[in-house]
Amino acid sequence: MHRTYSMRQSRAPTASQLANPPPPSSTTKAGRFFGKANIGHNFRRSAAGAFGPDLAKKLSQLVKMEKNVMRSMELVSRERMEVAQQLSIWGEACDDDVSDVTDKLGVLIYEIGELEDQYVDRYDQYRVTIKSIRNIEASVQPSRDRKQKITDQIAQLKYKEPNSPRIVVLEQELVRAEAESLVAEAQLSNITREKLKAAFNYQFDAMREHCEKLAIIAGYGKHLLELVDDTPVTPGETRNAYDGYEASKAIIQDCEDALTNWVEQNASVKSSLSTRARQLSQRRKAGRHQGEGVDLSHQDAPMENRESGLWIPASQHAGNGYEDEQDEEEDERSTQATEQRGREEERATA
Amino acid sequence: MHRTYSMRQSRAPTASQLANPPPPSSTTKAGRFFGKANIGHNFRRSAAGAFGPDLAKKLSQLVKMEKNVMRSMELVSRERMEVAQQLSIWGEACDDDVSDVTDKLGVLIYEIGELEDQYVDRYDQYRVTIKSIRNIEASVQPSRDRKQKITDQIAQLKYKEPNSPRIVVLEQELVRAEAESLVAEAQLSNITREKLKAAFNYQFDAMREHCEKLAIIAGYGKHLLELVDDTPVTPGETRNAYDGYEASKAIIQDCEDALTNWVEQNASVKSSLSTRARQLSQRRKAGRHQGEGVDLSHQDAPMENRESGLWIPASQHAGNGYEDEQDEEEDERSTQATEQRGREEERATA
Repeated sequence: MHRTYSMRQSRAPTASQLANPPPPSSTTKAGRFFGKANIGHNFRRSAAGAFGPDLAKKLSQLVKMEKNVMRSMELVSRERMEVAQQLSIWGEACDDDVSDVTDKLGVLIYEIGELEDQYVDRYDQYRVTIKSIRNIEASVQPSRDRKQKITDQIAQLKYKEPNSPRIVVLEQELVRAEAESLVAEAQLSNITREKLKAAFNYQFDAMREHCEKLAIIAGYGKHLLELVDDTPVTPGETRNAYDGYEASKAIIQDCEDALTNWVEQNASVKSSLSTRARQLSQRRKAGRHQGEGVDLSHQDAPMENRESGLWIPASQHAGNGYEDEQDEEEDERSTQATEQRGREEERATA
Repeated sequence: MHRTYSMRQSRAPTASQLANPPPPSSTTKAGRFFGKANIGHNFRRSAAGAFGPDLAKKLSQLVKMEKNVMRSMELVSRERMEVAQQLSIWGEACDDDVSDVTDKLGVLIYEIGELEDQYVDRYDQYRVTIKSIRNIEASVQPSRDRKQKITDQIAQLKYKEPNSPRIVVLEQELVRAEAESLVAEAQLSNITREKLKAAFNYQFDAMREHCEKLAIIAGYGKHLLELVDDTPVTPGETRNAYDGYEASKAIIQDCEDALTNWVEQNASVKSSLSTRARQLSQRRKAGRHQGEGVDLSHQDAPMENRESGLWIPASQHAGNGYEDEQDEEEDERSTQATEQRGREEERATA
């Protein structure tokens, strides 16, 4: 990882990078005719945030970039399934042991492709949640603009006609606008935090499940390979008849059971914190709770009134500038798809 | 997984698929202008195996399809790194806690992108190994063709001029061709098995390492999220000052340590076989060793001569029809890249 522990500073190579020269770069990384990136992806990325409020520009771009990531992951998934089929097709013409094992490897790799496809669906939940932060950002912009506009008008009037009666009216309006803005900023602050946590918890939970399942498959794949008899034969010598059909099927069944029974509570990969990190995190959490208590005691409003009537769900914020046709179309499609997925159709016709 | 445990039969939906309707399909899966697949990938795939010997056609196609998978994985990796940067850029304008945590999340996600990039390099080792099976397949074809041709000639002569002296000459030639063919087929059988095992062991080892590391990162990512203070504030209330910089840095350091110290021997995800599968696999292995012993006792050649002088490395097989310019160019590039990787360059200029 980067020595500076921040994305915002330039990075020096780490000691391990200097000590261990990397493996040869993949041959697929060179020799492209049309550059490295997908043309459509470049367009989507650069067009994002060109419209809509300033405040939400950076996040709109992130949302579009995540869409690129997802399309690419989807491509990997589809191509993985094709590879699985081709592997099985190739193996069919080989000897019995190679034929059976490649067919079963194909089953495992196809399963990886399907898991990748499901991961894309779960990743979309993350993206949609990030999108809701973008929406609240966009909806806060008008109230900021309004406050600014009134402030400007007052300043102008005070300069031009210091005794104008409109100043009083505008100042009353400003108080109202400031109140509205206070609420909007609090909403922004609360919803951003809530959704940020939810979004990345989605992503990391999905990633953990996906990765552990792939690691399980990799392990069973290695068991399958054991069934291939790779003791060399001399010319003319025939290999023993293959009798591993039962064994290979049992391995696939074991793998299936392991995948079916995987639950988050039994996740094997642990990311445990060092004592220092744990203490620092806990201090922070403790400080937070204490601090909150102190803050609340200074509030004028009674405790019961807190949060009451002030909050409206993000989906009801008006005028975020993003309820364009494309978005709505997308959402509609997404619910249609719940009932009948593209994948199911393909399977039926296959 | 598929109920039939084979890629070659049509698949019925499993009970769990029927019982648990899948999550909504990702919105990115609909609404494409130019179809789902990459145009270049489609071309590469359909052009593969159009030239070169019949025997190697299916495997050439597989090799090309794996190249598609790798290019797509590479795209995911690159776009992931871009997303990491954009996340950090967005967070910079937010409050201190969101700013610090998004920056650190960016570091983690960038690391995922880098791991994905390294995985592509390791996946290439798998692909190159599969390619060597394709090469031996292609090199065996001529000896098969020659044997067939002589057999045809003899049959034709016996029909047209049964007493021709050429028949004897051709029959001697056939014996020689058969001997050559026997050697070639034994080589094919041995090398296919050896390389198949090696190739998929590469792939599964790389996959296991990659996946466990990603799962580790996901776990630390969740720890980071804990630092975001998501207790709602009322309008006008200010949040406590953020003091989690040390904690977030410690989490990143812990994550870095966990990734650095990961070794295959300590892999946490186990793919253990059930008793039945283990017994079946062991029976198969035992049978193999026994059987081989019996076979060898019937051999005329003394044991010491076994495998001696008969084998030449796959790279020395002539005329496999694949030593075209593109391949050589690729290999050359791949070794150049060992010394200076594209990624390192980008980093230096960033």
